[in-house]
Amino acid sequence: MPAYATNMRMKFPIVALALEIITIILFAVFVVYDDGKGHGHGHDAHSNKTHPEPAQPMELYPMFQDVHVMIFIGFGFLMTFLKRYGFSSVGVNLLLAAFGLQWGLLMQGLWHLEDGKIKVNILKIINADFSTATVLISFGAVLGKTSPVQLLIMTIMEITIFSINEHLVANVLEANDVGASMIIHAFGAYFGLAVARVLYRPGLKNGHDNDGSVYHSDLFAMIGTVFLWMFWPSFNSAIAEPGFTQLTAVINTYLSLAACVLSAYAISSLVEHRGKLDMVHIQNATLAGGVAVGTCADMNIGPFGAMLIGLVAGIVSTLGFKYLTPILASKLGIQDTCGVHNLHGMPGILGGLAGIVACLHSRLPSSSHLLPLRGDAAMQAAALASSLGFALVGGVVTGLIMKLPFWGQPPDQNCYDDSIYWEVPEEEEEHEESLAHADHSKNKAEV
Amino acid sequence: MPAYATNMRMKFPIVALALEIITIILFAVFVVYDDGKGHGHGHDAHSNKTHPEPAQPMELYPMFQDVHVMIFIGFGFLMTFLKRYGFSSVGVNLLLAAFGLQWGLLMQGLWHLEDGKIKVNILKIINADFSTATVLISFGAVLGKTSPVQLLIMTIMEITIFSINEHLVANVLEANDVGASMIIHAFGAYFGLAVARVLYRPGLKNGHDNDGSVYHSDLFAMIGTVFLWMFWPSFNSAIAEPGFTQLTAVINTYLSLAACVLSAYAISSLVEHRGKLDMVHIQNATLAGGVAVGTCADMNIGPFGAMLIGLVAGIVSTLGFKYLTPILASKLGIQDTCGVHNLHGMPGILGGLAGIVACLHSRLPSSSHLLPLRGDAAMQAAALASSLGFALVGGVVTGLIMKLPFWGQPPDQNCYDDSIYWEVPEEEEEHEESLAHADHSKNKAEV
Amino acid sequence: MPAYATNMRMKFPIVALALEIITIILFAVFVVYDDGKGHGHGHDAHSNKTHPEPAQPMELYPMFQDVHVMIFIGFGFLMTFLKRYGFSSVGVNLLLAAFGLQWGLLMQGLWHLEDGKIKVNILKIINADFSTATVLISFGAVLGKTSPVQLLIMTIMEITIFSINEHLVANVLEANDVGASMIIHAFGAYFGLAVARVLYRPGLKNGHDNDGSVYHSDLFAMIGTVFLWMFWPSFNSAIAEPGFTQLTAVINTYLSLAACVLSAYAISSLVEHRGKLDMVHIQNATLAGGVAVGTCADMNIGPFGAMLIGLVAGIVSTLGFKYLTPILASKLGIQDTCGVHNLHGMPGILGGLAGIVACLHSRLPSSSHLLPLRGDAAMQAAALASSLGFALVGGVVTGLIMKLPFWGQPPDQNCYDDSIYWEVPEEEEEHEESLAHADHSKNKAEV
Repeated sequence: MPAYATNMRMKFPIVALALEIITIILFAVFVVYDDGKGHGHGHDAHSNKTHPEPAQPMELYPMFQDVHVMIFIGFGFLMTFLKRYGFSSVGVNLLLAAFGLQWGLLMQGLWHLEDGKIKVNILKIINADFSTATVLISFGAVLGKTSPVQLLIMTIMEITIFSINEHLVANVLEANDVGASMIIHAFGAYFGLAVARVLYRPGLKNGHDNDGSVYHSDLFAMIGTVFLWMFWPSFNSAIAEPGFTQLTAVINTYLSLAACVLSAYAISSLVEHRGKLDMVHIQNATLAGGVAVGTCADMNIGPFGAMLIGLVAGIVSTLGFKYLTPILASKLGIQDTCGVHNLHGMPGILGGLAGIVACLHSRLPSSSHLLPLRGDAAMQAAALASSLGFALVGGVVTGLIMKLPFWGQPPDQNCYDDSIYWEVPEEEEEHEESLAHADHSKNKAEV
Repeated sequence: MPAYATNMRMKFPIVALALEIITIILFAVFVVYDDGKGHGHGHDAHSNKTHPEPAQPMELYPMFQDVHVMIFIGFGFLMTFLKRYGFSSVGVNLLLAAFGLQWGLLMQGLWHLEDGKIKVNILKIINADFSTATVLISFGAVLGKTSPVQLLIMTIMEITIFSINEHLVANVLEANDVGASMIIHAFGAYFGLAVARVLYRPGLKNGHDNDGSVYHSDLFAMIGTVFLWMFWPSFNSAIAEPGFTQLTAVINTYLSLAACVLSAYAISSLVEHRGKLDMVHIQNATLAGGVAVGTCADMNIGPFGAMLIGLVAGIVSTLGFKYLTPILASKLGIQDTCGVHNLHGMPGILGGLAGIVACLHSRLPSSSHLLPLRGDAAMQAAALASSLGFALVGGVVTGLIMKLPFWGQPPDQNCYDDSIYWEVPEEEEEHEESLAHADHSKNKAEV
Repeated sequence: MPAYATNMRMKFPIVALALEIITIILFAVFVVYDDGKGHGHGHDAHSNKTHPEPAQPMELYPMFQDVHVMIFIGFGFLMTFLKRYGFSSVGVNLLLAAFGLQWGLLMQGLWHLEDGKIKVNILKIINADFSTATVLISFGAVLGKTSPVQLLIMTIMEITIFSINEHLVANVLEANDVGASMIIHAFGAYFGLAVARVLYRPGLKNGHDNDGSVYHSDLFAMIGTVFLWMFWPSFNSAIAEPGFTQLTAVINTYLSLAACVLSAYAISSLVEHRGKLDMVHIQNATLAGGVAVGTCADMNIGPFGAMLIGLVAGIVSTLGFKYLTPILASKLGIQDTCGVHNLHGMPGILGGLAGIVACLHSRLPSSSHLLPLRGDAAMQAAALASSLGFALVGGVVTGLIMKLPFWGQPPDQNCYDDSIYWEVPEEEEEHEESLAHADHSKNKAEV
């Protein structure tokens, strides 16, 4: 067993403060307010269009707030399902996202400097929030097995690599990915899985006592699920072209998610003992429709097309949780705590494929479409490949850095347990319970 | 005792998938995106006015998201107060609303086809969300005593019947019900009560161990309460005429709810032992002001008029919980789990009556009003009667269908218990507790 | 020990209903809907500018809803961290805010009558919500040690005094305080601390068993924290001048909060045993950046300037929780349950000072600024002094009134315990636990 130095007293404060101070210096050099006088500041980061400047600087603000809720409440509470890891889930989620949005604003902005400056506006902070989503997805794969310092390192690495791939996909390949199925969801998932593979822990092969939920922790997780589910139409449409294109993105996502719920519930019941529903599926697979419809959310796929995508995503995701996750862990050494492969990985690829099909279909002369279909199937395919490639290579490199022995990762027996990095209140009840339990054993022995 | 076949393994997946596939086919035939070129698509479903087309297709989107939160977080968490039924409350709420919004979009849209198509826009999805509220209200009446399959059947039936009544009220009677006191709240409540009456369980006459809350489940329920309370102004104003009429609906609802809180707290304290507050009242009766001001929210009733309505609603609702619910159960065989009669039934009727009075008042020559008062008192009364009639007849018919013995309803002893339809995590603590308890009994015997 | 008459049966209902009925009468006399025909109704209460009337009466509605969520979910759940006081935290928060917004609308409106009337619009209800924030902050200082009747009295007193100070600061001194660092946060904190001082309880000098959290109560509190954190940009920008000034307020707050998270986490880890994070710091100090950037949120302080303010606020706040709160309690007799001094008091003063510095800086000829800097450093300083003065004097007077022996304050042993004012569900588990515990003791004795 390697040595574990989990005392964070010096290393965490130093890393966190150093990163923040460096970031502030970079902001002092590069970042100014948008004054509306620039050119092209309406250009969004991960879509190949320059959309007209919004009439009002605050026009997208309600959309931003929806995305903000998804990042901080949605992802944060979704991961509180673990019985003894809720503080880390929602707390470290806040830490990573708060740092990530600053770093993301810099990394994304560097590709679009105006007079040497990054001009912050609502679109830019939406994209900054988006960039953190990649990290939060990867966080799900390694949840419970990493220290806050390791995760801060992952945040810098992943957002930097994400920004390169995003630039490539949106500006070089000019592919469409309005809801970011490829560049956020698939990217974040495979990045996280690669990290998890590098950090493989043989000691957890047979599971861990704390790697499970209790009744109330599952309810906390549903807060995350439902907020993600409700605001996903904003995620997929926030950077779409204003007007009817944005409306299309909203409607496609709304319907895809609704159809996805039905198939996730149906398959969960089908594969479980006595047809019972499994909370893991409900918390996660119901969201796969939002991921899978992302790339083509703003295309004219028809409302029923969106629903079909959602239906398939719910099926694929639920089956993944039931059958694929255990195989990944046992055969490939990929211990995916939250099953991000099923919620973000496969549905993200499905989304990328749907985007390719939608582009192919738009070439047919018979297809009538209200909305112009941009992009080219080959470019879409290249964008998917690029996203997967950057994710896997970036994840392996990042994992190797995270594996260095001085970042305070927890020993196996302290995984999935807040008390290694948090002051956890003494639970009077629990204490008594364990006394009672000990007591019981004693009595049992007497009998 | 009837035979109970609560194994959902085949029947639930088949019903859920079949419904979803049929729905997708109907969407493929009937539903297209709104392209802004239609006529009258700005017409809202449950108000007798054609309001001008919004300047922007996304104008109502923030209102939609507020309503969305009420449906999925509000209703979902409000029902988590039961100690062992939180998974079903928030989970089945998601299932029913996700299916209901698709079905509602079809049923409501069929009355307003344009060129044989339903053109989806934000107003349409707000109304689709609204239609699910009827089902979620009725769900509250039968909470804990029905299977997911029974509830899916109720969803189809109730939304179909709701759409007929809504069409009658808004387009034939041309009554005003902007916040849907009559056509959603009273309708949903009496529909649910009729179903509950048909499904009467003598075995639960003396209560059930699981029909109660624990400390944390009451806090989860408050998440639902507070989100409903906060966003109710959006519910009552979302489909109001844009501009100052919409503002009036917001202000009336905001003030009615605020006044309602004071009276609900006061009466709760007045009727309870030693003046203590009762969580059941706080979770529910504080919302009655939003229901009761619904019908006349967009009318010129004056800010103080809205507050009076809220004040009365809070009193009526709290007294209902304390004195009427037990009588309904013991004398009429109506076992109303969440007390929807007190939150939606009586306040809904109160709202209908307030609408009649507001219309009568507007006839007096002395009344000055900034806002035109539309509608006619007789039509308002007919609308209320229609809503109650459709609800009661529809509820009885639906209840009889739900009573058929093959839908997997739970036996009495498994009511209010998630574990019959859900994989529930083993609670280490609980397990130990019960051991400890057994242990205690043993020791006691020894003494 | 004084006599305690904690039976609320008559006094609470009478006080609550009397206050509501008086309020409704005042509304009948003074309050009408805004019809858009007035003059100056676009004037906001705590900023010295008359901004142009919004083009649409509903334009600010999404901002209003964000603020609404902060008041009712944010403050309400933030205080649920106490293990046995969650009902009171979220429930009494609802009560006080619901009454406070009505009272605030009257008190603020009386300074801006048009034709003898208060014309309600969205800006007015945003300001009404704001006025309740002062009370909710003070509530945090006395949480667990006061009765609902005492708190209703505090609400009337504090909002009345707040409105006077707000008028003085905004209209007489013409100081800038767009995000209300001084007039809400510092005011509310020092008002509450003064009340807490007057109500000092020597019996709680050595702490109280219930004055602490359990695992799940800390998670409930994080719901409050995260919603406050996310929507704080709306709080600080809601009443800013529309357009790029409002955008600046959003961006400054967004960045200040992000930087504040990093410093709060870093310092928490630095001062705790083995570098562990402390939930009290995370729940509170991460928000100090929003408070501290309030006064100058709409000024051209530069994105990095906002981040510096956030960084300092996070440090000051965390250190305050660790070192200052215990001293205030032991040396000065100020028992500050939630540590509002650290979250609102010191960061509020910091915000006021930052405002003074920003004004001084704008006088320098070398400073280039996109946005006009209004106000004068001396006026800013006078505004801060006025806010602190009104808070301390008002708090002492209010505390003396609250100390009168007939308002039903709880005896020391019932502090921090819902069950004195609420029907609390019997916790089967707990009951068994205590049996088990008793049992254990017995067995232990036998050994």
